[in-house]
Amino acid sequence: MKIGVLGTGMVGTAIATKLVSAGHEVRMGSRSRDNPKAKEWVEKAGRGASQGAFADAAAFGEIAFNCTAGAASLEVLQAAGAANLRGKILVDVANPLDFSRGMPPSLFAGNTDSLGERIQAAFPDAKVVKTLNTVNASVMIDPGRVRGDSDVFVCGNDAGAKAEVTRILTKDFGWKNVIDLGDITAARGTESYLLLWLRLWGALNTADLNIHVVH
Amino acid sequence: MKIGVLGTGMVGTAIATKLVSAGHEVRMGSRSRDNPKAKEWVEKAGRGASQGAFADAAAFGEIAFNCTAGAASLEVLQAAGAANLRGKILVDVANPLDFSRGMPPSLFAGNTDSLGERIQAAFPDAKVVKTLNTVNASVMIDPGRVRGDSDVFVCGNDAGAKAEVTRILTKDFGWKNVIDLGDITAARGTESYLLLWLRLWGALNTADLNIHVVH
Repeated sequence: MKIGVLGTGMVGTAIATKLVSAGHEVRMGSRSRDNPKAKEWVEKAGRGASQGAFADAAAFGEIAFNCTAGAASLEVLQAAGAANLRGKILVDVANPLDFSRGMPPSLFAGNTDSLGERIQAAFPDAKVVKTLNTVNASVMIDPGRVRGDSDVFVCGNDAGAKAEVTRILTKDFGWKNVIDLGDITAARGTESYLLLWLRLWGALNTADLNIHVVH
Repeated sequence: MKIGVLGTGMVGTAIATKLVSAGHEVRMGSRSRDNPKAKEWVEKAGRGASQGAFADAAAFGEIAFNCTAGAASLEVLQAAGAANLRGKILVDVANPLDFSRGMPPSLFAGNTDSLGERIQAAFPDAKVVKTLNTVNASVMIDPGRVRGDSDVFVCGNDAGAKAEVTRILTKDFGWKNVIDLGDITAARGTESYLLLWLRLWGALNTADLNIHVVH
């Protein structure tokens, strides 16, 4: 499958690398067409990897992953272009982190609104699926890094899009437990959870952590 | 130990009943001295159970549990009286739920502030420990209701108070895993988690649920 990955940071690099190793053709998108980090990634990732501007990556992909910082996501997606995202699955893994008050960060959305909802509202013709934002980049693509069963969540308004993303999560990323939380408003739940995640990180002294839901 | 339980709802009744059955003397506090639910509870709970106004319960207890609705908690604690809480452990199990926008509720604190912090700020001479607010009343006092290991959190500014509350959680309530998240500002994490908990409730169709942290 052809996949566009927007963002060249830890999350974008981890996801793009994993998708290439799973056999997908992946174009990493960044602000410019000659981003040094994107070029370095293409060289390392090898066959199936390419890079370009945000719009190039979005146009290339049958699916796009938003791996940008939450505060920049809407602007980046505008640069990627609504026409390039129309009818496609847009996997949103970003978090609405607000570092303006220092550490630990707070959130600029999550209670009565969420970044996932804002993206869906701004791009009504894309099928936004929120997922993976509850773990760090390492665990996203290697859930076995944490000991014992743990879970990842999906939410979004399109059932088919969630099913396709769930296939990628299980088949390509190795997730065994994918919990469907419902429509995109459930992003309020997974984004707000970050405030607990940050405290767990502090208490456990590792960011390689996750939760398993039991009932 | 003498314990005051503020609140006559499901949470207050569950906790007060469990504490009596564990051998503590428990006074349930409510707005009036002749609250029918409190009187009914005293009859059912039997030896060790008594009831009175909020101030009676707070004065009686060496420890107090805040089991009131989050929106009412500060007013109830004012009625209980700062002098009656001075130097004591105040276990806060309330959540800052805001039902004004309908269901699911949002939160009136949790991002850059928390109910736990507001209570600690309003009662600086009490030792506030936030705990148990991440599970429903049934699971609070019977963690075995969910299958498999799951965790409960404590946070607060007084290490001795957290140790004493942890003893009650493990010895009296049956919790095996108590995670100390740090000072009372960590209540932002456990309170914000409610927004995920509400979605899990919807997705799993049961409120008898919890999470286990793995790393």
